[in-house]
Amino acid sequence: MKITAILLAAGQGTRMKSSLPKVLHPVAGKPMIWHALKAIAQSTTEKPVVVVGHGAGEVTKYLGDSAQIVEQEPQLGTGHAVLQAEASVKGKSDLVVVCYADMPLMRGETLQRLVETQKRNSGPVSMLTVIADDPRGFGRIIRNPDGTVSAIVEEYVATPEQLQVKELNVGGYCFDAKWLWDALHRIPKNPKKGEYYLTDTVELAAKDGLPVHATVMDDLEETIGVNTRVHLSEVEAAMRRRINETHMLNGVTMIDPASVYIEADVRIGKDTTLMPNTCLHGGTELGEGNIIGPNTIIRDTKVGNGCKILASVLEGALLENDVDMGPFARLRKGAHLGNHVHMGNFGEVKDSRLAEGVKMGHFSYIGNAQIGANTNIGAGTITCNYDGEKKHATEIGEDVFIGSDTMLVAPLKLGDGAKTGAGAVVTKDVPADTLVVGMPARAIRKLERKTKKK
Amino acid sequence: MKITAILLAAGQGTRMKSSLPKVLHPVAGKPMIWHALKAIAQSTTEKPVVVVGHGAGEVTKYLGDSAQIVEQEPQLGTGHAVLQAEASVKGKSDLVVVCYADMPLMRGETLQRLVETQKRNSGPVSMLTVIADDPRGFGRIIRNPDGTVSAIVEEYVATPEQLQVKELNVGGYCFDAKWLWDALHRIPKNPKKGEYYLTDTVELAAKDGLPVHATVMDDLEETIGVNTRVHLSEVEAAMRRRINETHMLNGVTMIDPASVYIEADVRIGKDTTLMPNTCLHGGTELGEGNIIGPNTIIRDTKVGNGCKILASVLEGALLENDVDMGPFARLRKGAHLGNHVHMGNFGEVKDSRLAEGVKMGHFSYIGNAQIGANTNIGAGTITCNYDGEKKHATEIGEDVFIGSDTMLVAPLKLGDGAKTGAGAVVTKDVPADTLVVGMPARAIRKLERKTKKK
Amino acid sequence: MKITAILLAAGQGTRMKSSLPKVLHPVAGKPMIWHALKAIAQSTTEKPVVVVGHGAGEVTKYLGDSAQIVEQEPQLGTGHAVLQAEASVKGKSDLVVVCYADMPLMRGETLQRLVETQKRNSGPVSMLTVIADDPRGFGRIIRNPDGTVSAIVEEYVATPEQLQVKELNVGGYCFDAKWLWDALHRIPKNPKKGEYYLTDTVELAAKDGLPVHATVMDDLEETIGVNTRVHLSEVEAAMRRRINETHMLNGVTMIDPASVYIEADVRIGKDTTLMPNTCLHGGTELGEGNIIGPNTIIRDTKVGNGCKILASVLEGALLENDVDMGPFARLRKGAHLGNHVHMGNFGEVKDSRLAEGVKMGHFSYIGNAQIGANTNIGAGTITCNYDGEKKHATEIGEDVFIGSDTMLVAPLKLGDGAKTGAGAVVTKDVPADTLVVGMPARAIRKLERKTKKK
Repeated sequence: MKITAILLAAGQGTRMKSSLPKVLHPVAGKPMIWHALKAIAQSTTEKPVVVVGHGAGEVTKYLGDSAQIVEQEPQLGTGHAVLQAEASVKGKSDLVVVCYADMPLMRGETLQRLVETQKRNSGPVSMLTVIADDPRGFGRIIRNPDGTVSAIVEEYVATPEQLQVKELNVGGYCFDAKWLWDALHRIPKNPKKGEYYLTDTVELAAKDGLPVHATVMDDLEETIGVNTRVHLSEVEAAMRRRINETHMLNGVTMIDPASVYIEADVRIGKDTTLMPNTCLHGGTELGEGNIIGPNTIIRDTKVGNGCKILASVLEGALLENDVDMGPFARLRKGAHLGNHVHMGNFGEVKDSRLAEGVKMGHFSYIGNAQIGANTNIGAGTITCNYDGEKKHATEIGEDVFIGSDTMLVAPLKLGDGAKTGAGAVVTKDVPADTLVVGMPARAIRKLERKTKKK
Repeated sequence: MKITAILLAAGQGTRMKSSLPKVLHPVAGKPMIWHALKAIAQSTTEKPVVVVGHGAGEVTKYLGDSAQIVEQEPQLGTGHAVLQAEASVKGKSDLVVVCYADMPLMRGETLQRLVETQKRNSGPVSMLTVIADDPRGFGRIIRNPDGTVSAIVEEYVATPEQLQVKELNVGGYCFDAKWLWDALHRIPKNPKKGEYYLTDTVELAAKDGLPVHATVMDDLEETIGVNTRVHLSEVEAAMRRRINETHMLNGVTMIDPASVYIEADVRIGKDTTLMPNTCLHGGTELGEGNIIGPNTIIRDTKVGNGCKILASVLEGALLENDVDMGPFARLRKGAHLGNHVHMGNFGEVKDSRLAEGVKMGHFSYIGNAQIGANTNIGAGTITCNYDGEKKHATEIGEDVFIGSDTMLVAPLKLGDGAKTGAGAVVTKDVPADTLVVGMPARAIRKLERKTKKK
Repeated sequence: MKITAILLAAGQGTRMKSSLPKVLHPVAGKPMIWHALKAIAQSTTEKPVVVVGHGAGEVTKYLGDSAQIVEQEPQLGTGHAVLQAEASVKGKSDLVVVCYADMPLMRGETLQRLVETQKRNSGPVSMLTVIADDPRGFGRIIRNPDGTVSAIVEEYVATPEQLQVKELNVGGYCFDAKWLWDALHRIPKNPKKGEYYLTDTVELAAKDGLPVHATVMDDLEETIGVNTRVHLSEVEAAMRRRINETHMLNGVTMIDPASVYIEADVRIGKDTTLMPNTCLHGGTELGEGNIIGPNTIIRDTKVGNGCKILASVLEGALLENDVDMGPFARLRKGAHLGNHVHMGNFGEVKDSRLAEGVKMGHFSYIGNAQIGANTNIGAGTITCNYDGEKKHATEIGEDVFIGSDTMLVAPLKLGDGAKTGAGAVVTKDVPADTLVVGMPARAIRKLERKTKKK
């Protein structure tokens, strides 16, 4: 059975007061429409059709190949919107699911239940409803004695009795495709607003004596549609609770889940503790038994097991196991810290590999460098990797002792066991086991190493 | 019509356990009494009168010229408190509004409704009430069949039937001035506590057959009075929600409004995103399309459009457009960053201007300096602006390349296109297009610039 | 009267998905079982008995001498668990209190009320119950007409009528010791699960015509048992509220208590303000009138009065009064800052004493040093205290001026009033009132001090 989704994404979203199209506003780091597409993918078989309008260009650009795009111009209501997809979908699908792109909390499981309901329905349409004490302007569901839906009554035309109804229209439908297109051509223009409403298809079916089924949703939260940034923040908070609860049930400890911000794609191993005010963004993956935060921001970074990362900012980095870093440390793209690396306060690493056991206690910048195992980097060390035109590489061996405030003017190589004096400006390669001092640094002594390289 | 407010601010606030007078405890960065004065200003025409008592000196000092001060000493109840204002107000006002200085959530609109109610009242007083399920010790409002108020019954003398009443006295009144002063002299001393209560004026009016009107407030939150620091934190949270909701509805995105702390006077342009744990204090103004936070604290700073400020602390600074700063950057008073300035981690700027396109990647202190366009400041650069006695200025031209760990010993000038070697200690002015190295630095070469100044 | 507690801590806690035994998971910085032991200590006279099972080794190791340990292996239900304590307790106690180690919110006062209830009970057992709208699977309490308990009915065997009961079994009991051991031998094996349940003792007593009393708890929160990390985060949040409310009522201001994380043992003086996102860990003690945070993490540190600590991380430090530090400052173990010390951004101090009035503005590392009063430490100063093998000490006198980027190669002494030039690498002691410059630094001038040491 072929099932296609039509996603309504043409609305202007005036109340967002934004130059960004509404459905591109992010929730948990992904545009709202990403969430809608992800949910709908679970119960459809064909590439979805997205009806765009306001901000069509930006939405189309974002979607790329992930959806078929049809434009609604002018915008004459939801019935009219779905009709724009006729040419793309007619004859190519058995069922058509219609839902909104601005309801990012809608679960795939819920849409799946909707589709299952319609599969069992001899009539042409099934819909999602919800029971709510506070109707907030939603259309009321009028049921026949046999439980099928007879009408959706909008608040402004409802009788006092109808206003008491607590079952509300959510705005998600599954149609028999054959029936849908004909029905859409039959729905009347709303005399008051001059638009065509998809809800009128329900009344058409009921009038034709065809059963309309309704699936009552369990979770009111899923029905939140975003029309203002206040709604957006509510949806963000709900998504955060949902994501965090999943991680906690998988064995992640959070001292204060309300202040832990994890984007949708992040993976975390068990017995990892997330301290308050921790942000995990992008494709970040954390192993087991780590302690992250407080005040740590990690993006697109892979962390092994047993690491401690306190009050630091990481992006595009790789940490092996038992790394201890922070507070106030920063890893930039291409930073790779081996097992047992210690990186203290006010350190920065980018495009560099620190091998196992490297100690970089404080106030150092390591860029475009390779640093051998167990090397000690003194406070104030800087790899002078940029000459104003190009970046140059620094290679430091194992068991090296870089004295405080050493300038390593790249390109540069320091052999195993080398040592630099405080304040040295090293402009030439240093042989193994050699002490250099001064500006520019010169060799002054050959050294004997305690822990020789095996 | 002349309308004067009398603000009651004499209470001791014992349960605050503070050496600071209660009404000076801040909410959203401003003393509670500031909020009360701001609200009352909306519906009064004369300078308000504040009745002080405990901590009179400090409150008086804070208020300065913004209010007339009268002192209540000893403190014999709310009726007695208002009476202290008699000499200041009698004969100079048509209406008198009385309210508390420790209810910072009270809206100006609410007090305006109270005043409008009294303007339409043929009787001598109107009051604010609220409907609440949990009466929390408030006086119950007893209404006559015609809707006017007949009495306020305190909880400890209420009958079981009266205890059921859900309409409560809030403690805000608008009086006919002519009637008020006479009435205050007539209210009896409370036999139990030996004090004179303002609420007794209501009973006086009712006994005289004069109608007392009541305005029922919509929002229970506005009635929260602060008696402990727990209350203070509740009021702070409510004010935060109120402020943040306003900004969100104006087009500001907040990932987690609960952790965004914006003081009352801050302004923010649309499509600016505030990440979690962001503090905006004082007279801060942000333009459009900025991304601020996480973990950013900004005070008294003006930011243009399109800036990114990550995990940084700014105070008294000015940023033009498209500035990219942080994490772990700090701007102090007088820092001015031009368009497209990049300031990375562990940088500090004060009393300095960085012109368009300056790059200050890491670990640098720039103080009392002017830096020309497109200059690059290497890691570890320090303007040595202080000689133990005075601060001195540094002037750096355009397209300059400051090598890592350069000490710029002020007073000092570097010409356009100058360059310093790593570790240089520059003690004398450097001509344009000249390379200096060493300690102290000396010129070693004339340079040819790729991008000459036009 | 001898009263002994038996704490049940043998459960596996499978749903925690952890390799750490459940009762060792921390709440407010202390293992859950620490909270349970603290609460029970208030109403017992003997060393408690802890029944361990899963993770017995780790729990036993944590408990040390603080409890008697008995192991339950295999684990055949709560009745069987208590029976393991028979040899340790029988004949040595008049009353036996039984409760769970995974209910860290249970208050000592509540258990005390339970014990008092049993003291007044002529029957053999009293129990804790709670009234809840949502029974969440708890056993229902069936009362006799005289108010005594006749049975505890588990949800899966309850009649529809019994399911309506809102009084629930919490899992806390106080037994008459003489009766308990005999009763435990009499309780039947549960036919369905093959285990022995402690709740069956209640039915035994009732059948024997002996009165079972119940103490109804006021606060539902205390009954939360931790079975998943979601529960753990709920308990953590409740404990946080409880701790913070206590501090607020004692005179501590919190802008946002939801983001203030204070461990159980911390002490704070009045009129101290805790800004958002502040963590106070371990044995931290703060005096009066401090402003801490935002974004400050303090562990095992003592702070005097009137200090400001902004966006900094402190561990094992001591601050006297009126210290001003941050943002982005760090104190490590053994840092001692005297009165009026100023420590600005990007500073680190460990194992050092900064005497009164020392100014350490920015970018400095001070380790293993003593610094005299009113000395000024220039930006980029580093105590080179580590030679790759040992740490060495630095002694700096009063009124010293350390120029920017000075390397102080320890062991080293600088006399009062000494001064170093920018970039100096000081390898030899500097006499008082002497200026040294260069690498290595050499004396170039004798100085006259403005503020001579008295």
